[in-house]
Amino acid sequence: MKICVLPGDGIGPEIMAEAVRVLRALDLKAEMEEGLLGGCAVDATGTPYPEATQKLAREADAVLLGAVGGPKWDGLPREQRPERGLLGIRKDLNLFANLRPAILYPELANASSLKPEVVAGLDILIVRELTGDIYFGQPRGIETREVDGTQQRVGWNTMIYAEYEIRRILKVAFEAAQKRGKKLCSVDKMNVLECTQLWRDIAEEVAKDYPDVELSHMLVDNAAMQLVRAPKQFDVMVTGNMFGDILSDEASMLTGSIGMLPSASLDANNKGLYEPSHGSAPDIAGKGVANPLATILSAAMMLRYTFNQEEAALRIENAVKKVLAQGLRTGDIHEPGTKKVGTREMGDAVIAAL
Amino acid sequence: MKICVLPGDGIGPEIMAEAVRVLRALDLKAEMEEGLLGGCAVDATGTPYPEATQKLAREADAVLLGAVGGPKWDGLPREQRPERGLLGIRKDLNLFANLRPAILYPELANASSLKPEVVAGLDILIVRELTGDIYFGQPRGIETREVDGTQQRVGWNTMIYAEYEIRRILKVAFEAAQKRGKKLCSVDKMNVLECTQLWRDIAEEVAKDYPDVELSHMLVDNAAMQLVRAPKQFDVMVTGNMFGDILSDEASMLTGSIGMLPSASLDANNKGLYEPSHGSAPDIAGKGVANPLATILSAAMMLRYTFNQEEAALRIENAVKKVLAQGLRTGDIHEPGTKKVGTREMGDAVIAAL
Ligand SMILES: CC(C)[C@H](C(=O)O)[C@@H](O)C(=O)O
Ligand SMILES: CC(C)[C@H](C(=O)O)[C@@H](O)C(=O)O
Repeated sequence: MKICVLPGDGIGPEIMAEAVRVLRALDLKAEMEEGLLGGCAVDATGTPYPEATQKLAREADAVLLGAVGGPKWDGLPREQRPERGLLGIRKDLNLFANLRPAILYPELANASSLKPEVVAGLDILIVRELTGDIYFGQPRGIETREVDGTQQRVGWNTMIYAEYEIRRILKVAFEAAQKRGKKLCSVDKMNVLECTQLWRDIAEEVAKDYPDVELSHMLVDNAAMQLVRAPKQFDVMVTGNMFGDILSDEASMLTGSIGMLPSASLDANNKGLYEPSHGSAPDIAGKGVANPLATILSAAMMLRYTFNQEEAALRIENAVKKVLAQGLRTGDIHEPGTKKVGTREMGDAVIAAL
Repeated sequence: MKICVLPGDGIGPEIMAEAVRVLRALDLKAEMEEGLLGGCAVDATGTPYPEATQKLAREADAVLLGAVGGPKWDGLPREQRPERGLLGIRKDLNLFANLRPAILYPELANASSLKPEVVAGLDILIVRELTGDIYFGQPRGIETREVDGTQQRVGWNTMIYAEYEIRRILKVAFEAAQKRGKKLCSVDKMNVLECTQLWRDIAEEVAKDYPDVELSHMLVDNAAMQLVRAPKQFDVMVTGNMFGDILSDEASMLTGSIGMLPSASLDANNKGLYEPSHGSAPDIAGKGVANPLATILSAAMMLRYTFNQEEAALRIENAVKKVLAQGLRTGDIHEPGTKKVGTREMGDAVIAAL
């Protein structure tokens, strides 16, 4: 088990320290090596995904990532911004399948901005394509050219998908649905975008291989509404990179406790990058108050998907449930009647509960 | 006052009938002529935006639209689908500025899936660019070509904005913000898309002409989250056609009463198309139960924006508030303790309250 550990920026190092301690406590004989990604990598090497990290990440079986980015690097030129490191490692490792659960823990039902009856028991899995679409499509750019007789700047990007890209992400989604509630909702904008018309056509074709899964289609604008109106109608949702970026964040926020949500980004052989769904939270970085649970749960996902260690994954997940039941809360999910703890204490509690 | 009336499909004719009655009750000396748009136009002429409608719409000062579309026309080839009529008339009339208020009426606070304290008093205006972006960008299509050594289908679209398009919609948004809470949030995905980097740059430039408006920027994924988490942080939001499609529908649904929400789509001279934010609801069409208030409120927006008749607009809006206060509700917003009425009765009540 070779794990590349990338703490990243902001609260990244603090939350990662706890995830690493949890993994060590499991005594898994994992080899863990640390590297730089994002703003910290820019500071040290001038580039957000330096060669040393590339080597480490390519040779590892899995990558565990904290979070990247922060206002400190906002003014840098495009190619040096921390998020280019994230996009770079996704593309480099061919991590095309992003799995983002949106789960509401019963103990945290109050944290949601939605009414309890609308979100109680929420358990959605969003499958987002992660290495294609308008994120990577060419051509793209900004240039000055003649428009209607005057010189103007024009900015453009290309939304593009080839058949094989759509097919492989749909397979991942159908297989995930088979292991869950057997309902898959594919999200597109086929009434306007040819690119997503192809997506819908291929979804219909792939569906023939999964007769036990009920496939439905939804337009992206309607999906954004239905997530607010009645999110529990969904089991697994699958969509492209751009729509998935928006909808997976919207779905996470339905829980009100994004500090609890892990994610996995997988290649075709279940090599994966695992990271919390939340960001680097520069405002609370270094204070020891960040919630490490999403990172700890990301480590559990890693054990499940890359290392096939279902039992160890469940041990972590159950330990997390236990500390929630004990009433321990970091600041982001704290409410009256529960005990407010820091990052380190939360890590301690999970280790004790293992 | 020349008004082109396009009832459209599904519940369109029923709700439009009430809006027209309300306008007539105001005795405005408006000339109203009816035309076909959408599925009904396809049925009658083979095309969703027929020439007769084009003529009518071009010659009118304003267009009042019901709703278009329905499963009946889903199987038709792309160019004949009802929504092509909608895209066609927007482009033809150069209606680049789509204004979509998301307002929660105090009487309907319960209808929201969000907690009352999160949405009470919600009043957001979303300004969506409507004639550019990936909706109309070229090149686009689906073709079979060689990819990695095999023949595959590939689908693509082009997200593109020229400077003048971004500038004019931002001006509309800044001016709207000046008349409201003086806060404008511009939504983009500048960390990934060059097209929206240009958007952000130009927003900064235009902001110099509106020193009294506080401009902020938000990434689209974060905006989708913030709308769920704390929607009242927003006053006016402005964004491109694609992101606006998604965010404006999400924002409408926060109110839980999309049957109440009007919209306006304006050109540079305040000629406009006015339509409810909801769809054609084929499932309840012809039953006389649809909510006509969004269409009636769209007529009010028309009086305000195109005809500069603020007083008449307010008369309609106040009449609507009055019928809500009287406890009258169509099925979509009905709850125990209120009186359920049909489309026609609701229209009668508004006219009586004028
Ligand atoms: C940081 C950014 C490039 C990234 C994305 O848009 O994919 C992030 O929002 C995410 O969802 O992981
Ligand atoms: C029907 C469709 C083409 C349209 C759009 O995407 O613009 C609709 O969703 C809207 O928002 O008015």
